[in-house]
Amino acid sequence: MLGGSYCARSAFAGRHAPAFANMLTSAKYVLTEESECAAFGVDWLRQCPNKASIVVLPKTTAEVSAIMSYCNKHRIGVVPQGGNTGLVWGSVALNPHEVILSLKRMNAPSVIDSGNMTATCDAGVILEQLANDASAKGLLAPLSLGSQGSCTIGGNIATNAGGVHFARLGSMRSNVLGLEAVLASGEVLDLMCTARKDNTGIDVKQLFIGSEGALGIVTRAVVKLHPKPASQIVAMITVPTFQHVDEMYRLSQRTLAEVISAFEVMDEEGLILSKLAAQLPNPFPTTMRRGGGGSSDREAKGGYAVLIELRGSNEAHDMEKLEQFGALVAEKMPESTISLAQTESQLRSIWQLREGLPVKLAQAGTIYKLDFCLPLDKCFVAVDQGRQFLRDAGIPSHIDPISGACSGVIATGFGHFGDGNIHLNFIDVDRKHHDAIQGVLNRLYDLVSEYRGSMSAEHGLGSLKLKRFIALKESAANHSLLKVMRNMKQALDPNGILNPGKVVPPAPFAPPPPDPSASS
Amino acid sequence: MLGGSYCARSAFAGRHAPAFANMLTSAKYVLTEESECAAFGVDWLRQCPNKASIVVLPKTTAEVSAIMSYCNKHRIGVVPQGGNTGLVWGSVALNPHEVILSLKRMNAPSVIDSGNMTATCDAGVILEQLANDASAKGLLAPLSLGSQGSCTIGGNIATNAGGVHFARLGSMRSNVLGLEAVLASGEVLDLMCTARKDNTGIDVKQLFIGSEGALGIVTRAVVKLHPKPASQIVAMITVPTFQHVDEMYRLSQRTLAEVISAFEVMDEEGLILSKLAAQLPNPFPTTMRRGGGGSSDREAKGGYAVLIELRGSNEAHDMEKLEQFGALVAEKMPESTISLAQTESQLRSIWQLREGLPVKLAQAGTIYKLDFCLPLDKCFVAVDQGRQFLRDAGIPSHIDPISGACSGVIATGFGHFGDGNIHLNFIDVDRKHHDAIQGVLNRLYDLVSEYRGSMSAEHGLGSLKLKRFIALKESAANHSLLKVMRNMKQALDPNGILNPGKVVPPAPFAPPPPDPSASS
Repeated sequence: MLGGSYCARSAFAGRHAPAFANMLTSAKYVLTEESECAAFGVDWLRQCPNKASIVVLPKTTAEVSAIMSYCNKHRIGVVPQGGNTGLVWGSVALNPHEVILSLKRMNAPSVIDSGNMTATCDAGVILEQLANDASAKGLLAPLSLGSQGSCTIGGNIATNAGGVHFARLGSMRSNVLGLEAVLASGEVLDLMCTARKDNTGIDVKQLFIGSEGALGIVTRAVVKLHPKPASQIVAMITVPTFQHVDEMYRLSQRTLAEVISAFEVMDEEGLILSKLAAQLPNPFPTTMRRGGGGSSDREAKGGYAVLIELRGSNEAHDMEKLEQFGALVAEKMPESTISLAQTESQLRSIWQLREGLPVKLAQAGTIYKLDFCLPLDKCFVAVDQGRQFLRDAGIPSHIDPISGACSGVIATGFGHFGDGNIHLNFIDVDRKHHDAIQGVLNRLYDLVSEYRGSMSAEHGLGSLKLKRFIALKESAANHSLLKVMRNMKQALDPNGILNPGKVVPPAPFAPPPPDPSASS
Repeated sequence: MLGGSYCARSAFAGRHAPAFANMLTSAKYVLTEESECAAFGVDWLRQCPNKASIVVLPKTTAEVSAIMSYCNKHRIGVVPQGGNTGLVWGSVALNPHEVILSLKRMNAPSVIDSGNMTATCDAGVILEQLANDASAKGLLAPLSLGSQGSCTIGGNIATNAGGVHFARLGSMRSNVLGLEAVLASGEVLDLMCTARKDNTGIDVKQLFIGSEGALGIVTRAVVKLHPKPASQIVAMITVPTFQHVDEMYRLSQRTLAEVISAFEVMDEEGLILSKLAAQLPNPFPTTMRRGGGGSSDREAKGGYAVLIELRGSNEAHDMEKLEQFGALVAEKMPESTISLAQTESQLRSIWQLREGLPVKLAQAGTIYKLDFCLPLDKCFVAVDQGRQFLRDAGIPSHIDPISGACSGVIATGFGHFGDGNIHLNFIDVDRKHHDAIQGVLNRLYDLVSEYRGSMSAEHGLGSLKLKRFIALKESAANHSLLKVMRNMKQALDPNGILNPGKVVPPAPFAPPPPDPSASS
């Protein structure tokens, strides 16, 4: 077996780097130094061992095409990479004999068409940059993510990113009007449509959305923009039980309906563990306890914090709706607390609280991140069950709501209620329960299958969740689905060079054709 | 060549009907009488010659699977059919040796999950039935169409139906959470997911949405439902020019934004020709004339009528927004007229005016229906250019705004402005300009390609627009796209039995395997 030693890496890199350098405008866009490659070789959580031996940074579609032609001819695995902010080891090399193809340099300024409310972007454009460009024309980008300062449009499309405004603005999939993709063969597929509706047969662009680069590399796209709302209001509400969260959501669908742009939920455990509970805005209790209780210096009022954002065209109307909603919540749920952001700075603080949560949790121990989608009214069932399964497995779990001291494994959930998307995290504070946690995860994945939910709502499969996905489908005897996926892969990437080992079971590598230059 | 004579048809039907009858619960679900087949054999516009010789009506997925297995083995073409309301000859047999597989009997009551706001439906459920079932639970179906009284959910999915609330509720594609499909081989693909988000690799269900039954037959689905709005307001506004329509749309995005649920445009020619102009609500002029003029008994005020619908959670707010919008329109466009539906009956009348238009136009002469999607601010350019191309070709076109008398070929456009989707219709009143009109169409299709719009936004390709689609892609040298489409077809339907001659160029029929029963 060809190992991952530095010698083997550098031999592979040394063999192919000159050819790549010839395809690009400068040899400096081919990285082979271990120190340079490292940033591209490890994932966002720094959990995946760095196997990168060569990184190429094309600037144009023609360069991407040349690289793919070469790699297809030589049967070299290619890992497309955007901002490398993924969580499932989908954009890192699993093998030192793969090439990382970073699209970062494909970031020419986007063309904003105000008349059509669309943007035409290169794949490497940073989401935040697009949001700023759109905003300058009075328009809104199609999605908002915690990682928007570093993730790219191409990566957003390849992973069908969701984010916090999904329920209002839709998935990335529903915001992509057209795209350009380079196939494994190097062929360029021009699907750069500007139309909001296009029913001309098989919608080929869908193949490249959410398939994590396994079927082709997205190099450009036309995306929808939305009218920028005149008003933005953010409130945070705490309630003691998930049933209250669910009831509040139903109320919001009646009284806030068209103006809700986010309905995000966080549980007490996560807020305490992340040390964020203390930053909850007044009049929030500094400690919350599910089901109430009175041992803190404030009255404990809730086990869940809900962030509600309203975006609309008339602030007075939206505020009136929120007041009406707040009155209903207060009447039906006297244990609730409601806190309204009064200033732009408070509004940002509340959002930062939510968006900072994943980062803080990752610092609290070894983290196991699940990303389920379940029926709306069932989405926290996974968290409750997760806690039960920890108990069943005899794994200790202790968190002190006052001091924040904790031990064992803490289960905590946060997510996008309006989408049924719950990010369930197990934090192994002791950093020693790996094997026991696996048994808990097995039971949870089975639970998601029973509900016919999704075992990876936003994050994708990458390489980290691929085996789990295959196992679930095989245990459900859904061989037809796996077969169709393999057929699609075979049809578009017969040599299996695109993102090997991810998304679909890798097709066996075909032996490379004889190299005429080697025999001469 | 095997002809379409009744003898040939009945021989084919006679050979296979007993086998189909064995797969179903009764022989009465296999139709072979010419009179019975006729309703399934002609399209909605009654333009396609009836070639149907056999229609099968399965009740269950298992029956569909058995039929497909048999047809795949015997290389028999299968035409899946829902409500048969399509406009592009996509659900009718092109050859008497094909079987029409109607899903009409697969219409068990839908299961409405209020907690998840979803419906699980059989493919043959009528859209209006789903809308009623959802409404009974306080929810809203994901789309509204003129044909909702007869179109089916399965057909809506197979054609990725759009409709009048697309801009607010999204495409059918973005409302399908899961589906079940029967492949050409008879294999059943279970993709019945209930999750709003699901990024588990290649999203296989997308293959069956909008591909008009060429890759598989949708038999069941899980679709999103939406909160039923508390308030519905409809207004009709006339303005003299398309620039006014565009400006009005921009205003609406600022002042009505989140409450707009429809923004439909109709031009003067269509309203006069359809004899609907007289039914325009007061204070509309009974005749409108583009650019104004004064020969009628009322002051001519507009060349375009715009239907605006608002749906929201608070009627007083929505009305206040509409008043503010109306004041802005009146100020900026003094030639406009605004008419508000004051009663439920007026509201329905205005909608019926819009929804009745296609039917009335089809009665006024031989109709050529185009269904373009263009950049929002360019969508009526196609209509203006269509009129210019008629003049260039020397085709007469006369319409009297007072009497409604007309001759030659009338070009008229209506559609969904918020989607950039314009239904451009040529009505050959004289019924003799077929060849000349073809030249006009050629020029228009080229125009759509230049704008990178869609040559079939809602209607699909079927068999009527397939050749045009292929020609456009070939002239743009987009061979890669056609190749990928053929690859997908080949991967899922290697014998080319699903909806032959539609959507993708038909794969050559593989010769049927020797029939052992024939030789004995």
